[in-house]
Amino acid sequence: MSETAAERAAALDARDELAPVREKFVLDGCVYLDGNSLGALPRQVPGRVADVIAHEWGELRIRSWEEAGWWAAPERVGDRIAPLLGAAPGQVVVGDSTSVNIFKAVVGAVRMAGAGRDEILADEASFPTDGYIAESAARMTGCTLRALPAERIPDEAGPRTALALINHVDYRTGRLNDLPGLTAALHEAGALAVWDLCHSAGALPVRLDAHGVDLAVGCTYKYLNGGPGAPAYLYVREELQACFDSPLPGWNSHAVPFGMDAAYAPADGITRGRVGTPDILSMLALETALEVWDGVRIEAVRDKSLALGDFFLECVEASVPEGRVRCVTPREHRLRGSQVALSCADAGKVMTELIHRGVIGDFRHPDVLRFGFTPLYTSFADVARAARVLAEVLE
Amino acid sequence: MSETAAERAAALDARDELAPVREKFVLDGCVYLDGNSLGALPRQVPGRVADVIAHEWGELRIRSWEEAGWWAAPERVGDRIAPLLGAAPGQVVVGDSTSVNIFKAVVGAVRMAGAGRDEILADEASFPTDGYIAESAARMTGCTLRALPAERIPDEAGPRTALALINHVDYRTGRLNDLPGLTAALHEAGALAVWDLCHSAGALPVRLDAHGVDLAVGCTYKYLNGGPGAPAYLYVREELQACFDSPLPGWNSHAVPFGMDAAYAPADGITRGRVGTPDILSMLALETALEVWDGVRIEAVRDKSLALGDFFLECVEASVPEGRVRCVTPREHRLRGSQVALSCADAGKVMTELIHRGVIGDFRHPDVLRFGFTPLYTSFADVARAARVLAEVLE
Repeated sequence: MSETAAERAAALDARDELAPVREKFVLDGCVYLDGNSLGALPRQVPGRVADVIAHEWGELRIRSWEEAGWWAAPERVGDRIAPLLGAAPGQVVVGDSTSVNIFKAVVGAVRMAGAGRDEILADEASFPTDGYIAESAARMTGCTLRALPAERIPDEAGPRTALALINHVDYRTGRLNDLPGLTAALHEAGALAVWDLCHSAGALPVRLDAHGVDLAVGCTYKYLNGGPGAPAYLYVREELQACFDSPLPGWNSHAVPFGMDAAYAPADGITRGRVGTPDILSMLALETALEVWDGVRIEAVRDKSLALGDFFLECVEASVPEGRVRCVTPREHRLRGSQVALSCADAGKVMTELIHRGVIGDFRHPDVLRFGFTPLYTSFADVARAARVLAEVLE
Repeated sequence: MSETAAERAAALDARDELAPVREKFVLDGCVYLDGNSLGALPRQVPGRVADVIAHEWGELRIRSWEEAGWWAAPERVGDRIAPLLGAAPGQVVVGDSTSVNIFKAVVGAVRMAGAGRDEILADEASFPTDGYIAESAARMTGCTLRALPAERIPDEAGPRTALALINHVDYRTGRLNDLPGLTAALHEAGALAVWDLCHSAGALPVRLDAHGVDLAVGCTYKYLNGGPGAPAYLYVREELQACFDSPLPGWNSHAVPFGMDAAYAPADGITRGRVGTPDILSMLALETALEVWDGVRIEAVRDKSLALGDFFLECVEASVPEGRVRCVTPREHRLRGSQVALSCADAGKVMTELIHRGVIGDFRHPDVLRFGFTPLYTSFADVARAARVLAEVLE
């Protein structure tokens, strides 16, 4: 008699080295497969935020900028994220939204590019905000913007290319772009590589330093579990920081911010990527949320992520009526992020019914069911149940 | 026998209509005169934020974008601030930092200005970030930037002026600029008026609509008590919204944000001022903090603010050794915001000692002691004590 999916899931969970990390999150009876949109709540966060509000804001008040370390939080939390990106300290700063950081990165890269480089390439499958902001950056720097499939970048990058803005993992299909290869191809063309890591950081090794990525941005509310709308981050490779010329030179990026000088002089280092007063409540919630990564190997996360995806697809194939869904996520591991996207007629209605039955994924226009696997808290049992409920809904 | 300062303070407090509002804040034995830098904690905030984290993030998770009203928060909280600015609903949106909003407002105003208008005027006494960001906006729109004293704007605005960026209240001296007069003068020159309300909103009536202000920005962590680094706001006058062309057209400002269209189409109304995913923890802390304004008349706030300042100056003059400090804040009510700034030798050391003795103001380079009066929770007794301790320190 063949093993059931539930039995296989139990066996896989029993030998999962990340299984104990699940206890660090607040979870309930649902199967939560939307951590690629909003990560679950780490248990340490409520207590820490309560203390920030009651003690640091309520009692120390203004003194907390120094005494509680608020002022230095953008760089400190950046250094906490850096290992997940394969970045040495001093290259990541936290603050603002992903969109605002894309603007800084794209304009900054145009200004770093040599004379005569007036073309921006953008991955056409990007999350839309990347394209909108790249278009604004192009308009404001006198560049042209050309959208194209990421895989064509090596052929299309040329002597006029300033940079390419590329999503590491496609938000819709879950396809993983070739960061080392595309970065190398851009460098060969004399152009800069700007990566959007929203759907990869925290789900797989990124290795920014090792691959010589120039600039990168990402959000912190998906696989980094920072909370709704938590601040994003900007990475600028150390060698490029001295020529990073931000389009948003707010007072927090000044060399002497409390000098209150009318003339702007940029700070050294990644502090140059700051803008205005950092949002402390969200920043410190994020800092605490990052504690769940203590002792976690990102390679183990990647292994489990792929295993979860493989197991989900096996379960779906075994139980969902033939032809009812089509997998739009590449099966090959080297081409896959940490989600599985299924194209499906009536996807919006199907997702509503899944959610009603306790399986939380999301729907992306026009016909995609997205299931995100967050290896720190998704179990193989979750995945087996999600596939079973999906089959029931589609029958 | 003449009345003591303490006796006069007690009498003034006894007839203060705003005295009961003080109970809505968490205060301690200190005299807190730095609410113009970081407002005190409203009592309702800790409980609300705890619920947002535990229930909305921890349990509802992704569903809260709809079910808990997260998605609409930037406009909803904007409408909550609007009455304090004298703005009808639908013209204020909350999000990003003040610096980022200055960038949107200044670039937006340049794009609204007629052809041939390629000059930006900026109040030279501005908080520095205003000048830095205006300079970047000028550079990126092909304009020139000219810094000058606010009072010279009527003489200097001309046919090439696109806009002037002016601080309503000077962060250093506490001087109140003439918003109605300068706005009218700019309009007469065919230019737009962009106001920075960081040091006025919540301390005095602003009346944006009545005076025809075009665009405005402000922070929410000073007189609005939103918490450290709470999100800022952008005001765009209703008639101008259709031609507001944001330099930061993130996906949140799209007409159909979940349509995931590769082509940008701006939303109608003030939503066009949004950029990326809003920072929910800080946004909802701010929303709750704004409840302290229920039933408060901004005219009463202004009356008390001026009375606190007058009383402080009287006490200082009566007790501080002659010549030891010089008031750099105008005495005339029509020229004064809600702070008193005293120039003083060794101001940095003096402020350190004041803080040590429980009087919290702040020091601004090079020689200014700032005392901010926040009428919702500053009492006349606080002011009398601050003046007495200042005299003791300076003796």
